Amino acid sequence: MNLTGATRLNVILGDPIAQVKSPNGVTQAFADRGHDGLLAPVQVGVEDLGAFLAVADRLKNLDGIIVTVPHKFACFKHCRSASERADFLGAVNIMRRRPEGGWHGDMVDGLGFVGAVRAQGYEPEGKRALLVGAGGAGSAIALALVEAGVRELAIHDADHKRRDDLIQRLNALGRATVEAGSPDPTGYDLVANATPAGMRPGDPLPVDAGKLTPDTFVGCVITVPAVSPLIDAARRRGCPTSTGTEMYQALQSAMVDFLLAPQAASPLAASERA
Amino acid sequence: MNLTGATRLNVILGDPIAQVKSPNGVTQAFADRGHDGLLAPVQVGVEDLGAFLAVADRLKNLDGIIVTVPHKFACFKHCRSASERADFLGAVNIMRRRPEGGWHGDMVDGLGFVGAVRAQGYEPEGKRALLVGAGGAGSAIALALVEAGVRELAIHDADHKRRDDLIQRLNALGRATVEAGSPDPTGYDLVANATPAGMRPGDPLPVDAGKLTPDTFVGCVITVPAVSPLIDAARRRGCPTSTGTEMYQALQSAMVDFLLAPQAASPLAASERA
Repeated sequence: MNLTGATRLNVILGDPIAQVKSPNGVTQAFADRGHDGLLAPVQVGVEDLGAFLAVADRLKNLDGIIVTVPHKFACFKHCRSASERADFLGAVNIMRRRPEGGWHGDMVDGLGFVGAVRAQGYEPEGKRALLVGAGGAGSAIALALVEAGVRELAIHDADHKRRDDLIQRLNALGRATVEAGSPDPTGYDLVANATPAGMRPGDPLPVDAGKLTPDTFVGCVITVPAVSPLIDAARRRGCPTSTGTEMYQALQSAMVDFLLAPQAASPLAASERA
Repeated sequence: MNLTGATRLNVILGDPIAQVKSPNGVTQAFADRGHDGLLAPVQVGVEDLGAFLAVADRLKNLDGIIVTVPHKFACFKHCRSASERADFLGAVNIMRRRPEGGWHGDMVDGLGFVGAVRAQGYEPEGKRALLVGAGGAGSAIALALVEAGVRELAIHDADHKRRDDLIQRLNALGRATVEAGSPDPTGYDLVANATPAGMRPGDPLPVDAGKLTPDTFVGCVITVPAVSPLIDAARRRGCPTSTGTEMYQALQSAMVDFLLAPQAASPLAASERA
């Protein structure tokens, strides 16, 4: 890249920040699409986020903000407008400056998962899906699966309160039958792991892999190791799979799409806050 | 470069910012020296500088700040400590985070000029120098010439008050004879232009080039055009020269030296503010 003072600035905010990979990929994707832009890592503590965002509002060459842990909920509150899915989740992982002032936010983590599944040639629409994990990533994936048109979605999480709360809110959308699930994948077309189970040696598998059949698609959010124990078990049983790295690649593409979207108006049916 | 979340952040602050060239060169120089660092452009208005610096104090991955127009004087005031030359000039063009907290500032614009002269094999020590222009760049160059050991320094500026004020303060250092000069270069070994004269077609030359002799070294701060009318005239008369672009290259090297200096303690005889 040819970085100059005219290069448009975008930042990724998190604390810690050293683990993020997107500065290189997003900056390269900008160049590939003919945009002179940079994604710079910025480590901001929770206690400093408000002051940072107040300054970010006024930085004249800052176009976009990618948001990671622990700022996704606070940044949602700072957005003047947001996509329907960000409103549903109460969180954003990406913001762009609106031509009319303030920031427009979206939450595309779930699009990354669905994008990775589709990149393998598998279409979630009309399928029965089992999701393990109802936390931040799990909630985003659950919503994306419902938006992608799954017929049924079962959600398993040891925290029954957050599981049932998510189920209730998803059912209120009236787009799919959402219910409580278990680690048993029997009868599901698509199985999604949105828990960290498999990142450390000795972790239990998030689902009972012995019951997987070769017609079940298995997706996982874990990027380290590149092939998680669940993905490895699924492949041994002949299942098609998508990995966390593939999810991340699809997510990065969705992020660049969002940041470079035409700036005539905020897209999607955006909510507007005072 | 391989930009990641672990890449250490440095920013160049200015308003406007699109004209600066250093993000690419400094980032490349970091890589050449084995440092995983980035210089990102940030456009901050005068009215927002205080809030920006308050946030910058607390950004955990921000190591250094390069300062350009119009922030050099205000950023000096924000530094906890500064080099003697920055104290003398009341301005900084570069800051690095101190291991003990706060920022250490320096003003290396003048080093760029002297570095470019020396890069041509010319040694200012013991010479008689004429400087045209006593503004921000001129003041920094005047001090750098005195620090480089010129025997005499004559300063010409249409603004007699700022010329005489600078002369008085430089003489108070007791290191060289500093006096008022004129556009006549007769008798000087080294002639320095620190004015914008030559950036626009039809500008008058800053010195009477018809009186230059081939033993006079002529340096200029102008980068656009790459060969300023003064440099062109000097070369036609057989004078050795240094251009604004060569000054900029030396300046960039001095900046990277400063940003990557060992962090055990603030170097130079640093002043410490409350």
